[in-house]
Amino acid sequence: MKFNFKIVVSLLGILLVINGGFMLMCLPVSLIYHEGGVVPLIISGLVSASIGGILWWSARKRTDDNLSKRDGYLIVTLGWLGMSLVGTLPFLLSGAIPNFTNAFFETLSGFTTTGASILNDIESVPKGILFWRSLTQWMGGMGIIVLAVAILPLLGIGGMQLFVAEAPGLKPDKLQPRITATARRLWIIYVGLTCAEFVLLIIGGMPVFDAINHSLTTMATGGFSTRQESIAYFNSPFIQYVLIIFMFLAGTNFTLTYYGFKGKFGRVWANEEFRVYMIGTLILGAIVSVGVYFNTGSDIERSFRNAMFQVVSIITTTGFVSADYTLWGPFLSILFFMLMFLGASAGSTAGGVKIVRHILLLKNGILELKRQLHPSAIIPVRLNNKAVSPEITYNVLGFIMIYLTIFVTSTCIMGLLGVDFVTALGSVATSLGNIGPGFGSVGPVNNFAHLPSAGKWFLSFLMLLGRLELFTVLILVTPYFWTRN
Amino acid sequence: MKFNFKIVVSLLGILLVINGGFMLMCLPVSLIYHEGGVVPLIISGLVSASIGGILWWSARKRTDDNLSKRDGYLIVTLGWLGMSLVGTLPFLLSGAIPNFTNAFFETLSGFTTTGASILNDIESVPKGILFWRSLTQWMGGMGIIVLAVAILPLLGIGGMQLFVAEAPGLKPDKLQPRITATARRLWIIYVGLTCAEFVLLIIGGMPVFDAINHSLTTMATGGFSTRQESIAYFNSPFIQYVLIIFMFLAGTNFTLTYYGFKGKFGRVWANEEFRVYMIGTLILGAIVSVGVYFNTGSDIERSFRNAMFQVVSIITTTGFVSADYTLWGPFLSILFFMLMFLGASAGSTAGGVKIVRHILLLKNGILELKRQLHPSAIIPVRLNNKAVSPEITYNVLGFIMIYLTIFVTSTCIMGLLGVDFVTALGSVATSLGNIGPGFGSVGPVNNFAHLPSAGKWFLSFLMLLGRLELFTVLILVTPYFWTRN
Repeated sequence: MKFNFKIVVSLLGILLVINGGFMLMCLPVSLIYHEGGVVPLIISGLVSASIGGILWWSARKRTDDNLSKRDGYLIVTLGWLGMSLVGTLPFLLSGAIPNFTNAFFETLSGFTTTGASILNDIESVPKGILFWRSLTQWMGGMGIIVLAVAILPLLGIGGMQLFVAEAPGLKPDKLQPRITATARRLWIIYVGLTCAEFVLLIIGGMPVFDAINHSLTTMATGGFSTRQESIAYFNSPFIQYVLIIFMFLAGTNFTLTYYGFKGKFGRVWANEEFRVYMIGTLILGAIVSVGVYFNTGSDIERSFRNAMFQVVSIITTTGFVSADYTLWGPFLSILFFMLMFLGASAGSTAGGVKIVRHILLLKNGILELKRQLHPSAIIPVRLNNKAVSPEITYNVLGFIMIYLTIFVTSTCIMGLLGVDFVTALGSVATSLGNIGPGFGSVGPVNNFAHLPSAGKWFLSFLMLLGRLELFTVLILVTPYFWTRN
Repeated sequence: MKFNFKIVVSLLGILLVINGGFMLMCLPVSLIYHEGGVVPLIISGLVSASIGGILWWSARKRTDDNLSKRDGYLIVTLGWLGMSLVGTLPFLLSGAIPNFTNAFFETLSGFTTTGASILNDIESVPKGILFWRSLTQWMGGMGIIVLAVAILPLLGIGGMQLFVAEAPGLKPDKLQPRITATARRLWIIYVGLTCAEFVLLIIGGMPVFDAINHSLTTMATGGFSTRQESIAYFNSPFIQYVLIIFMFLAGTNFTLTYYGFKGKFGRVWANEEFRVYMIGTLILGAIVSVGVYFNTGSDIERSFRNAMFQVVSIITTTGFVSADYTLWGPFLSILFFMLMFLGASAGSTAGGVKIVRHILLLKNGILELKRQLHPSAIIPVRLNNKAVSPEITYNVLGFIMIYLTIFVTSTCIMGLLGVDFVTALGSVATSLGNIGPGFGSVGPVNNFAHLPSAGKWFLSFLMLLGRLELFTVLILVTPYFWTRN
């Protein structure tokens, strides 16, 4: 396998041109609200588009149109990094985030749809810049759909082949020609749901600007809010229920949502991951509701709403906050910490481990006991009534183990940087899982501004690692990647 | 495979007779020190021996001398449980621990060589009873050697086959006739090292009674002390260094120690797990020394000694305390929490995950990245220069995943019982790993007395689970175990 750097550079160029286009799309917002940011946005947009154009032009004489696997790994990682680097410009130039470390953290937190923020006073940021901030998440979500549908299955990462088998009309052997069609179909759903949510939030009485931004960051399971208090600011049951539903949809495999729109509900329900996601969310919501009811003394509806909101927000790795779950007593604190390792459905915009991997893990664990008694029998794990190949199971177990190893090592590193135990656990779990709020001093009512710079860079690295399903980034640092076979 | 309950009952009977014999061995101590406990020990010993005798007699007409695999699982779990239940008698009858929950917790903590205690004033307990307490750990250690050498490899649990291949003269196919010989050889080392440590502790100026007890609980990697302050009480560098060396030896594969005694050092060093154990301990000790030096302001020797002591104590799952490691700053706190998941060598008396499993896990994780690039290549993990079969690697990954799943679920359950986050994490990690001290309110200078009863029962269950390598206990609750196949 040889590298084809030209195609990598050329694609990176195209991404940066698109990036510049989106920056210029923030101009109308800046012009309408007169809060500044016009010149910074124009400069940023032109710089991004120019860099992109130069890269594309310099590599335009492509010898070969086929992406190799290695090119795939490179373009994904470089794409996310490049977009985030250039994406800091509006923050830096407008002075909204003058510090480069903070600006990069915020932008990467956007593009990785994490939602961890270093802003201490969100409301003081010019609306045009805030709109860019929300757009980074929405673009990140679009990127993730392409990644999940087209690239990760091609690279065979962490059992993502499982998802491919379920994608409409997709067969691993004839992937290339259909990528565009499938991605376009799912993007239409993504855009459609964003619009639907916007309309419902307006009906719920949310101001137009807030409604646009929250719609963008919900569908990306991003979690950036236009308010320092996040969703707690709006204090409207209707808005919260709308967000619960759309966060849940954003955490659903988009292919299933597509089936849903086509009325094929049987096919949706036949999907084991969706059933576990649906039923699991309801059960967890019920458990947490009881806990909230007894711990806070709120009435039943309010307890249920806040419980459901936070459960869905964390499971889907969105990270919106309607109430501080760290004040709900020790059991619920621990539970929420554990929920950070769930992640919603594969093929959604959610980050984290993903439910399908947990299903395989648990099934395999139980079967391991059966294998213990019958060592000569071959007992495969079954998913959606089909046997899963041992290679994929192995791959999934490997993914989870690497995820946990990174979590453990990273918590130590955060401790070494002087962060206390609970904050270290929380910041690493939330960054790696692309969630947003953590525990301790980075809890739901705090932010990441006070962390040491080295900690912010390290957490940024974790966000990228988690968003790109670990392997995509890690493989770049192995010698295997850079040596010719 | 059919059950052979008679042989299970008969073996359980023999174990309880032995138990009774050990109880009566505590009589001289009680008689010498005149602190009470004579009558309780006599009654306990006779009751244990009688129950054992009746069980043995009732099942004496054995139809078949061969232990089936299922019988193996049953006898191991029932053995540890039965010994612990009857082992509570000296505590209950002497009034040293009047509460049954506490007495069971303390006794099981002994037999599982955990060392977690509910005693608030160890020095006030009659010496004869304290001696029984230390003996439970020493017996537990003897049991573990048999388990590791003879039973677990037979059951094929969690990669313990890997260890068998290394045992002197053992081949999995001809196991039965050599079990006794191998176990006897390793027991001689166990007893010999216990005696050697006793002599050295006496030379170091430790009172005779303390020296006997600490020798018994060191070699078992148990960690029960005769002092409320644990080893910090003695405040002697020599004693601490002696303990560091013997804890390290207790955490070494006893088969390798056997080779060492025979002068075959090349064979010891050829063992990959031992090299990682040795070098890893030194590196961790060095890192922690630096941390302690800067965090406590102690002089260099004292920092090194306390650091090394606590690192070896936690890695070997002994649990002696020379200093409170939770006061050494956030980084070292987190590091020590992580160390609780290491566990020393397979084939030692140490609990926990064991280093060899971590080696396989890490090697497999790195190779997984290589497999990603070359999906068609078969790339096995290599250990001690031999390829490890995929089944064993799979089994080891399964073990670690189940270990972590139990850890996570159990932490939630402890939270549900009203225990705070850090204490929940710490108490579960230390119980499952058979260590002793934890974090939070069950830290190195605290004990487990204040936990709710349900919490104590649950942690007792975890100690048993961890000690018996998970599968042995878990398999009993699966339907696969009880159905004829």
